[in-house]
Amino acid sequence: MAVQKPSTPRGTRDFGPDQMVKRNYIFNTIKAVYQKYGFSQLETPTMENLSVLTGKYGDEGDQLIFKILNSGDYLSKTTEADYQEGSKPFLTKVSEKGLRYDLTVPFARFVVMHRNEITFPFKRFQIQPVWRADRPQKGRYREFYQCDADVVGTDSLLCEAEIIMMINDVFTDLKLEDFTIKLNNRKVLTGITEVIGAPGKETAFCVSIDKLDKIGKDKVIEEMVASGFSAENLKMLDPIFENNQSTQQSIDFLKGFFADCEIGLKGVSEIEEILSYLSAYEIENAHLELDLTLARGLSYYTGSIFEVKANSVQIGSICGGGRYDNLTGVFGLPDVSGVGISFGVDRIYDVLEELNLYPASNSSSLQVMIANFGGETAKAGIRLMNALRAEGINTELYPDDAKMKKQMSYANGKQVPYVVVIGEEEIQNETFTLKNMVSGEQESLKKADLISKIKNSH
Amino acid sequence: MAVQKPSTPRGTRDFGPDQMVKRNYIFNTIKAVYQKYGFSQLETPTMENLSVLTGKYGDEGDQLIFKILNSGDYLSKTTEADYQEGSKPFLTKVSEKGLRYDLTVPFARFVVMHRNEITFPFKRFQIQPVWRADRPQKGRYREFYQCDADVVGTDSLLCEAEIIMMINDVFTDLKLEDFTIKLNNRKVLTGITEVIGAPGKETAFCVSIDKLDKIGKDKVIEEMVASGFSAENLKMLDPIFENNQSTQQSIDFLKGFFADCEIGLKGVSEIEEILSYLSAYEIENAHLELDLTLARGLSYYTGSIFEVKANSVQIGSICGGGRYDNLTGVFGLPDVSGVGISFGVDRIYDVLEELNLYPASNSSSLQVMIANFGGETAKAGIRLMNALRAEGINTELYPDDAKMKKQMSYANGKQVPYVVVIGEEEIQNETFTLKNMVSGEQESLKKADLISKIKNSH
Repeated sequence: MAVQKPSTPRGTRDFGPDQMVKRNYIFNTIKAVYQKYGFSQLETPTMENLSVLTGKYGDEGDQLIFKILNSGDYLSKTTEADYQEGSKPFLTKVSEKGLRYDLTVPFARFVVMHRNEITFPFKRFQIQPVWRADRPQKGRYREFYQCDADVVGTDSLLCEAEIIMMINDVFTDLKLEDFTIKLNNRKVLTGITEVIGAPGKETAFCVSIDKLDKIGKDKVIEEMVASGFSAENLKMLDPIFENNQSTQQSIDFLKGFFADCEIGLKGVSEIEEILSYLSAYEIENAHLELDLTLARGLSYYTGSIFEVKANSVQIGSICGGGRYDNLTGVFGLPDVSGVGISFGVDRIYDVLEELNLYPASNSSSLQVMIANFGGETAKAGIRLMNALRAEGINTELYPDDAKMKKQMSYANGKQVPYVVVIGEEEIQNETFTLKNMVSGEQESLKKADLISKIKNSH
Repeated sequence: MAVQKPSTPRGTRDFGPDQMVKRNYIFNTIKAVYQKYGFSQLETPTMENLSVLTGKYGDEGDQLIFKILNSGDYLSKTTEADYQEGSKPFLTKVSEKGLRYDLTVPFARFVVMHRNEITFPFKRFQIQPVWRADRPQKGRYREFYQCDADVVGTDSLLCEAEIIMMINDVFTDLKLEDFTIKLNNRKVLTGITEVIGAPGKETAFCVSIDKLDKIGKDKVIEEMVASGFSAENLKMLDPIFENNQSTQQSIDFLKGFFADCEIGLKGVSEIEEILSYLSAYEIENAHLELDLTLARGLSYYTGSIFEVKANSVQIGSICGGGRYDNLTGVFGLPDVSGVGISFGVDRIYDVLEELNLYPASNSSSLQVMIANFGGETAKAGIRLMNALRAEGINTELYPDDAKMKKQMSYANGKQVPYVVVIGEEEIQNETFTLKNMVSGEQESLKKADLISKIKNSH
């Protein structure tokens, strides 16, 4: 048999030991914050019925769902006529399941299926991979993790304040200092379209304004005019486009701007209520910025919207979310509103890498390797290893009686901070040689001193 | 549009908050032990190329791999003639990828692809779901987690001792007291077939002896005779079938039995070396049992084999593994030997449930809910919540100013141990009412006392 040269599918990745330590650092930080705020974890199956998935992400989204072939003789229920009809109608005969495309639709399905067991408001978080048959390119994968938290079953704006605080905590815990949490409200955007005489054209407005960062104010206005907005009326938006006002100035502007616009004023009062809650947290909200040009694309938000940028790294948003009115209507349970966020782990990974923010030592990594010279010294090694592990120190004895050079190169490969050497003499004196692999320093220590040295080193 | 009644695919499961807390308790315990022993985490993609997966699990296994339809117009490369040929040949035209079937083949692929970056011996663990298109039934799912650890690139028997210690640590940490780690060696089983005059018939021997628990000694012998083993010679195995001997008695018996059988003696000496290492750990190995009838089915093991039983629960093995000679040969890298284990999380979950071994409180769950009566008391609630979270206490403020009864029923639903009530009077006195939701006890406390009370309660 010809030997295969194995590979991974396009757009997917292996995560080796070093990457896993870093990824877990991010996941664990987010998870700890979610739990601190009272969110409970949920996991849903990788496969969902296509009846659950399709029709939720638009036609393009449906195309990007990975479909799973029915098991067994999957052609048995098809006919030649079915085959002639082509890929799309044929699909319903050969595939009933697809891979999870996001975490929101499975969450909505869960809420509907378990509505009688759930105590609302329901605060859940979910950290799982999703799959999209997108064309792979730099930074875009076919398998990637989402890290979502949502509260459903309440329209309390305290939830918005809590979400802003969670974002603040996560990035503060990750030691990212230079980030901005942008806040806006869809009702404000709806109000703007009313005031500028284009009611109902919110979608076109959002699509254009969303490009502000990329193409600049002039091109955005140009595009809006092309979509039928009045050039004259768009001039009213100058103070919004400038975006150099303080939060209070923006609010004051909007109150005048919306004097006769109910939905706009509702949006402003929601923003004010959120800010009032935030002041009770008594932290300095240096990271929060009211950005009236934030639109969050075409999605299904109806109230507050959030987005986070790492200011010192050229990368898109690293976190986003907002409030929606109707999570579960498509599954027959109307009026379940909620608010949620999602952290973009792959981008956060790159940001921490670029800013060199990963902690040097990590409780999940190996801390001590004991060199192995066989015989009685190996047995002494086992005894020491046992004692170190009992103290919670991750330790291993090199498995073979190999050359010192080989063992040291193994220790270096695994980036172990300490190596212990035990010789015959050391067994007699009950001392051990501890080598610091970073400084190269070596010292001879009794067991208790060796343990406290290692425990105090991180 | 008719409203859909959503469901999950057969053989898959949602894991809600309570189950997640319990499952994470098991995963975290196993993970901490793996890390304590110097294993590094690896994650591989959910999708693998079918060229990697097929031919590794036998014909039946190949059938049970979930296949993913090529994206886009998947029929475009097919012809009517292809369609006429039926499901199996047609498959190669419409599907190139499948879902991970186990963690071993992806691990082997990883080792081969990254052999130049890996420092051997390579100790990796991997905790990820796998998928099999098996018929779902009680305790058998189409999506389930595997928790594997393997050392590859060394034949040191210290690895076997380490694995036995890891098993011991995991179940001890999970507070499971009554379990048995069964140890045997494939070379012993090979030796037996030689001595009883049936060299080369190891597979048939293993298949039959594997059924000993289920069908008993007499039926096993009957089956062996039917497969061509000599009834007369099988009588030599009586001491093995009795299985009431001490480890030392078994070893002494085997040494005589294998007097002229090299491979058998090699197996015995491996067992003795492992036991000698274990004695250096200086723990009582009450859980280890040499079981010469342990065979571990048809798998690819060539040396030590392990299996763990929970003695007080009627369930199959909860952990198993062994040594293999050739992990990566099929991908063109010969002579990579190793040893590994896998914990059966679903069964362990059921065992802990049946024996009521889950810890009562858990750092991942909500610890305090603050009731919300709006206005200034809500602001005071935010300030208290902030202080509790800063102390590492998972806390939430009920999001709405709702009826006390509703808030308490929410707290009960979430199994929160403590509820705090803040009234106008309490704001003035700077005290808070703390209600223990288990005992029903209520007391009025200053903030510092409230914090220390909660911190000391678990």
